[in-house]
Amino acid sequence: MDPVEAHLARVLAVIRPLAPARLGLEAAEGAVLAADAVAVAPLPPFDNSSMDGYAVHAADLAAAAEDAPVTLPVADQVPAGDTRAVTVTPGTCVRIMTGALLPAGADAVVPVEMTDGGTGQARFSQPVAKGSSIRRAGDDVAVGTVLLVEGTRLGPAQIALLAAGGHGEVLARPAPRVAVIGTGNELSEPGTPLVPGRIWESNTYMLAAAVRQAGGVATRHRAGDDPQAVLALIEDLAARADLLITSGGVSMGGEHDVVKAALSGAGIADMAFHKVAMQPGMPQGFGVAGPYRTPVLTLPGNPVSAFVSFFLFGRPALDALQGLAPRPVRCRPAELTAPVNSPAGRRSYLRGVLAPDGATVTPLAGQGSHQLGALAWANALIVVPEEVTAMAAGEAADVISLP
Amino acid sequence: MDPVEAHLARVLAVIRPLAPARLGLEAAEGAVLAADAVAVAPLPPFDNSSMDGYAVHAADLAAAAEDAPVTLPVADQVPAGDTRAVTVTPGTCVRIMTGALLPAGADAVVPVEMTDGGTGQARFSQPVAKGSSIRRAGDDVAVGTVLLVEGTRLGPAQIALLAAGGHGEVLARPAPRVAVIGTGNELSEPGTPLVPGRIWESNTYMLAAAVRQAGGVATRHRAGDDPQAVLALIEDLAARADLLITSGGVSMGGEHDVVKAALSGAGIADMAFHKVAMQPGMPQGFGVAGPYRTPVLTLPGNPVSAFVSFFLFGRPALDALQGLAPRPVRCRPAELTAPVNSPAGRRSYLRGVLAPDGATVTPLAGQGSHQLGALAWANALIVVPEEVTAMAAGEAADVISLP
Repeated sequence: MDPVEAHLARVLAVIRPLAPARLGLEAAEGAVLAADAVAVAPLPPFDNSSMDGYAVHAADLAAAAEDAPVTLPVADQVPAGDTRAVTVTPGTCVRIMTGALLPAGADAVVPVEMTDGGTGQARFSQPVAKGSSIRRAGDDVAVGTVLLVEGTRLGPAQIALLAAGGHGEVLARPAPRVAVIGTGNELSEPGTPLVPGRIWESNTYMLAAAVRQAGGVATRHRAGDDPQAVLALIEDLAARADLLITSGGVSMGGEHDVVKAALSGAGIADMAFHKVAMQPGMPQGFGVAGPYRTPVLTLPGNPVSAFVSFFLFGRPALDALQGLAPRPVRCRPAELTAPVNSPAGRRSYLRGVLAPDGATVTPLAGQGSHQLGALAWANALIVVPEEVTAMAAGEAADVISLP
Repeated sequence: MDPVEAHLARVLAVIRPLAPARLGLEAAEGAVLAADAVAVAPLPPFDNSSMDGYAVHAADLAAAAEDAPVTLPVADQVPAGDTRAVTVTPGTCVRIMTGALLPAGADAVVPVEMTDGGTGQARFSQPVAKGSSIRRAGDDVAVGTVLLVEGTRLGPAQIALLAAGGHGEVLARPAPRVAVIGTGNELSEPGTPLVPGRIWESNTYMLAAAVRQAGGVATRHRAGDDPQAVLALIEDLAARADLLITSGGVSMGGEHDVVKAALSGAGIADMAFHKVAMQPGMPQGFGVAGPYRTPVLTLPGNPVSAFVSFFLFGRPALDALQGLAPRPVRCRPAELTAPVNSPAGRRSYLRGVLAPDGATVTPLAGQGSHQLGALAWANALIVVPEEVTAMAAGEAADVISLP
């Protein structure tokens, strides 16, 4: 059996970042920059006032005092957005609003609350330091500064910085298009009646949601147990998706393993199937299919196996398509509140509830790879290493918080 | 000045959860359940095999041994999805696949790898315990079990459990529709040329992205500095949004505070404006507008102020619209790598970089409320309490990780 890391390395060795595209700022939300974004203008673009007040020559107020106030005529008024070239001549002042262009000549702004707020003339009862309440052009970001480096995922603050820097669009990797394929004759659509022998299909809903959570665009597809039909579907989807993810049909011996049967030896595909030393999720496969050699990740069909497999291999694959370096899965230690078991030679990912303070983790009942209840009620995976078969309550286990 | 908590309480006292709707499973991704979802069928729905193998009467193999194997005729074959009513008669076995309906009479499944894998007949060289490799109906979830409680946000695993439980749609709160309005004559569209006195608009892009990140649907709108036009826009949007968020035009004295001017005393609105003891973001407002008394959150216009204000008041407002109880902001202590300052009487939210291990936090240069660079490069906010004006390197500060 291969270690988890070996299968992940196999996936990451093949996947290449998607071609970048110029995306508008809203389309770029959540996407990953494909090139450094550089400041083409200083931020702020011009000297401006940080307060509502009066733009002055500081020297005019040098002698101002509570008992000897200085009064200056208000020569003009500059609201934010005013683009006129205004000048403050010595012995006068100009009313100015927050964010407004600093008039030529002015070297300080006095906040309105430190004056009498006059409109024809204004009274000042203390001196002001040169540069006071002025934001200088470029004091946030100078021209030529790298605003954001290639590989940055664009959240609200990053989008804001790009907008403020005048970038109406950016070069970014678009969201990967992922086709999710569920296989098996036993599957019925949720919301329809069920007959014995059939189960309601959940994997395509789950995996499509997980793909979207990881920054991809997902479409859902279904196939039965006919290898020719599965192969035709894969061939079709491989031509219009960046990644295919199948679930089911990859176990270790049944002649009914439809995905294995469809892809093994198929001319259009180059696949390998492996046992990976993990539980749930031992049977795994990866390869490429179709004329564009689209990557294909074949996950096991038990829902919990499919979920854990997507977390370990699918999310990194989506990151790689978006040009992100693989990030190690973040494990933190937490104290087990109950004992756990694990098969020898396989790394277990058990479903558990991590306490809000992160100190303890409680393994849930129902750890079978078909038992979705425990998965849906969990907020964490408890990792039990390959060589460990039992851990006692009170021992510290590695825990992964689920997104 | 009001404490942050007082302003938040004012917001949460007014906002009511949106009316629930029946949503399909894909539409429900990320939404919040508006009622408990109950299991209408057991999970699994029927006894089935957990392995590829042979369904048997365990008693038939009681004497099986390596040197005295038992051979049974293979009477039938049951793949997953087969809905026939098959029976295993004593002295025979039935080939069965993982997930397939357990034939009547069978009380154990022997995995194929423990047999000779025969098709006409199969050889067994050890006994099998009753119940072995059988998943019983309901062993994941029994009928009537609450699958998920009201107030659960539906991620991939929760969607999967609902699907597996046969729910084609669920009663959930739809994503709140949020109209984001930027105000000010100084704003130009990113990607267009700039003249001195104008800046590129970033707040509506930032706030719309933040709304989407918090589970809402956002539309972006712009207005200048004419109170009548701003009021007309607010009146229009209030009739077709669940929440309005404005930025700019709420400072403390300028006659150019367009949002304050538009909404103060307007017949269609019931607003209050306050100073909140925080930095950035002192000027805040909240109220309702329009015939449906749509909540209106008026944020300050400096981008960093708007960001922090949305984080503190807007995200909880979106949670409340989705029927989630207000969650306290999660603070963790981290050691400052450099000193910080904060104005007396105001709680500062400074931009910083939290180390990957969470042990230390580095305050960034450029803490002005207009300085988007530091915000975009930060991954955390450093909280300095109202009564503290300076903290030294090495002191432990409360830190909030940014989403």
